[in-house]
Amino acid sequence: MSEIGLLRVNRDRLRTDLVRLAEIGAYDDAPTGLRGVRRLALTDEDAQARRQVIEWMREAGLVVRIDRIGNVYGRRAGIDDSMPCVLMGSHIDTVTSGGAFDGTLGVLGGIEVVRTFNDHNLRTLRPVEVGFFTEEEGVRFGVDMLGSSVTAGRLTLEFAHKLTDDSGASVSDELVRTGFDGPEPERRPIPHAYIECHIEQGPILAAAGVDVGIVTGVQSISWQRLELHGEASHAGATPIEHRKDAGVAAAAVILEIRRMCESGEFGGLRGTVGKLSMEPGSTNVVPSGVRMTIDLRNPDDDAMTAAEAHLAEFVSGLAAQHGVAGILERMAKTLVREFDPGVQALLAATADDLGLPYVVTMSGAGHDAQEIAAICPTAMVFVAGEYGGISHTPREYSNPAACGNGADLLANAIYRLASQPAG
Amino acid sequence: MSEIGLLRVNRDRLRTDLVRLAEIGAYDDAPTGLRGVRRLALTDEDAQARRQVIEWMREAGLVVRIDRIGNVYGRRAGIDDSMPCVLMGSHIDTVTSGGAFDGTLGVLGGIEVVRTFNDHNLRTLRPVEVGFFTEEEGVRFGVDMLGSSVTAGRLTLEFAHKLTDDSGASVSDELVRTGFDGPEPERRPIPHAYIECHIEQGPILAAAGVDVGIVTGVQSISWQRLELHGEASHAGATPIEHRKDAGVAAAAVILEIRRMCESGEFGGLRGTVGKLSMEPGSTNVVPSGVRMTIDLRNPDDDAMTAAEAHLAEFVSGLAAQHGVAGILERMAKTLVREFDPGVQALLAATADDLGLPYVVTMSGAGHDAQEIAAICPTAMVFVAGEYGGISHTPREYSNPAACGNGADLLANAIYRLASQPAG
Repeated sequence: MSEIGLLRVNRDRLRTDLVRLAEIGAYDDAPTGLRGVRRLALTDEDAQARRQVIEWMREAGLVVRIDRIGNVYGRRAGIDDSMPCVLMGSHIDTVTSGGAFDGTLGVLGGIEVVRTFNDHNLRTLRPVEVGFFTEEEGVRFGVDMLGSSVTAGRLTLEFAHKLTDDSGASVSDELVRTGFDGPEPERRPIPHAYIECHIEQGPILAAAGVDVGIVTGVQSISWQRLELHGEASHAGATPIEHRKDAGVAAAAVILEIRRMCESGEFGGLRGTVGKLSMEPGSTNVVPSGVRMTIDLRNPDDDAMTAAEAHLAEFVSGLAAQHGVAGILERMAKTLVREFDPGVQALLAATADDLGLPYVVTMSGAGHDAQEIAAICPTAMVFVAGEYGGISHTPREYSNPAACGNGADLLANAIYRLASQPAG
Repeated sequence: MSEIGLLRVNRDRLRTDLVRLAEIGAYDDAPTGLRGVRRLALTDEDAQARRQVIEWMREAGLVVRIDRIGNVYGRRAGIDDSMPCVLMGSHIDTVTSGGAFDGTLGVLGGIEVVRTFNDHNLRTLRPVEVGFFTEEEGVRFGVDMLGSSVTAGRLTLEFAHKLTDDSGASVSDELVRTGFDGPEPERRPIPHAYIECHIEQGPILAAAGVDVGIVTGVQSISWQRLELHGEASHAGATPIEHRKDAGVAAAAVILEIRRMCESGEFGGLRGTVGKLSMEPGSTNVVPSGVRMTIDLRNPDDDAMTAAEAHLAEFVSGLAAQHGVAGILERMAKTLVREFDPGVQALLAATADDLGLPYVVTMSGAGHDAQEIAAICPTAMVFVAGEYGGISHTPREYSNPAACGNGADLLANAIYRLASQPAG
């Protein structure tokens, strides 16, 4: 590195692309009064954004390939192009009411790193790739980190292809429809290392007054679907003690999850009910049914197991307490994933060289990096967000300096990894 | 009455019509595995049912007229046709997942009473009318007892016409579209008396082992809409203490309403949250918003006022406790309505003459009778339902004997009222 000094990305160029990509899938968000991004995986909006990002990859000289689960990789040849590449990337799909930074920073930041290499006519020993993975959010097809899970071998292509959205459309159909059913094998060649640059989506970096974080790993995540079956009856004529009110049972579950988090009984548990529908849905009818999702996170696998067991017990107790039967089904679970100490150390040394203060933290959110970590040494760079690091809302905002510092750290770390000889 | 003895309706004929009308708007109800009825006010299904009922009215010799809010009346002339009529009736619209008896029993029972008069070539001193009122359920346009409220003068025609459903269609447009924007004034001529025969929709009659009840009045009803405004944030990365979770606030409201009912602090309060939606509605996003309805019933006006005040106070406390702002808006309120003691006494004497045991009870549900009671002496006949009197579900069921006994009581009471001279 000494011969080229420290790399600095072009912050304006990165910013411009972040803003331009946010225009694809933009909508007026009534609750916040802001312009949000709604680009669910494999929708028309996502396909349009994919084509835009591929265009930018090609403009940066990358050779693009697409695999059978729709993951996209852009490759810059190495001096020894037969060596395993150094991979960076993230995702460009969003939640229903998303912002401009979640995922896209790691992808557009990766392209900006390549452009910075190009600006300096910098060749690397190893090839460098920028990738983005299909359906990281899990909002449309119900399984998050979908593309990276398939690539890393935790889920099969067949399983992923058969997943459907609420309207019954399958991943496989939507890959074909949008033109992203690529020819490449879904199990990609093993990289030398992977670094994902991503907004923190939490308040820790901002509270510490730093722009970047080095991520030690990702919490365990458990997603469950809960169906509650009570009995519809007349709101005026049915005495309280005769009711089998699925809505009351649902409320009891929501407050129990909150209590579980606040009590400390299950370590650093975080629990969220973000999706809920009530049947038949009339003002004057006691609800017969509720469907809801439960999102649990825990930095400790044993505490997570205990939380899941407690929740299941609580749900089974609803029959006796409220006359409501509960069916709890696990949609997805990932264990705590520790990132590679070597890549973390390299990031720390690089941040020191750049003079960037940083915090070392675990990720509360799930990321593609936790999947890719199964196949190669992996770590993540976090970038601070404003307003308490709020994310999954149009209020999500990381300032140009923070994004630039994150991309600088990424650029220099990737360069160092891409310079590492074999063995 | 002595000269004609006691009237008995044709139970098979009534049953046949109840079954036939339930075919209009019939659907397969997945939760119960039964055939339900979905015939929301002024939909195509409701219009088809209206045409069928009008056909039956005309076959029974009734002269049909329709008013400007879509209420339909069928008239049988009296010996002195200038005297105020005796009115019976109810409604034929249903909730989203309704049954075959709610409302329709009073309308088809009324037509069966007329047929029974015809069978005996029985003329009455006063004219007799059978009516059905528009949007009793309030499920489509948000205000229940709509047609009867307008007829009785509590709501204006202009207000009612402007109400819209979730898709933005107005009552006025839907009246025109379905052909039920009648020419008659919405404030109908004042009847001599009104009796509504209706299923109980509760367990009291069945528990007492009787088929019929005489209703002393209707509980106070308060419908409120609650909007909760929190803040969307990432389910994994947002510490619990930073959250403004509108779903947790909603759960707290639901359980507080249940506690209010169980505590006895607010008398015989019944509270129901039957409709709830969550925004943005993603598994991994802390919900920013909840919209829900609250249905409160109380047999005592003061206790209802106290319950409403307590609820408003609880909602305003959500800001401090959960960082969630609540906007509570009253959609509708009716005070306790006491029915006419004279009509109740006449019903009791008639039931005794028929040898029908009965209970005397207040109605937990709202009914058109509570509106019509504002313009003439009114009471109701309740008919027992099976399965605890469950209603607003396809499981709603009243057996032929109970329906027949209710219609017999109606027939003889109407005959006696229609024989009453002026003054």
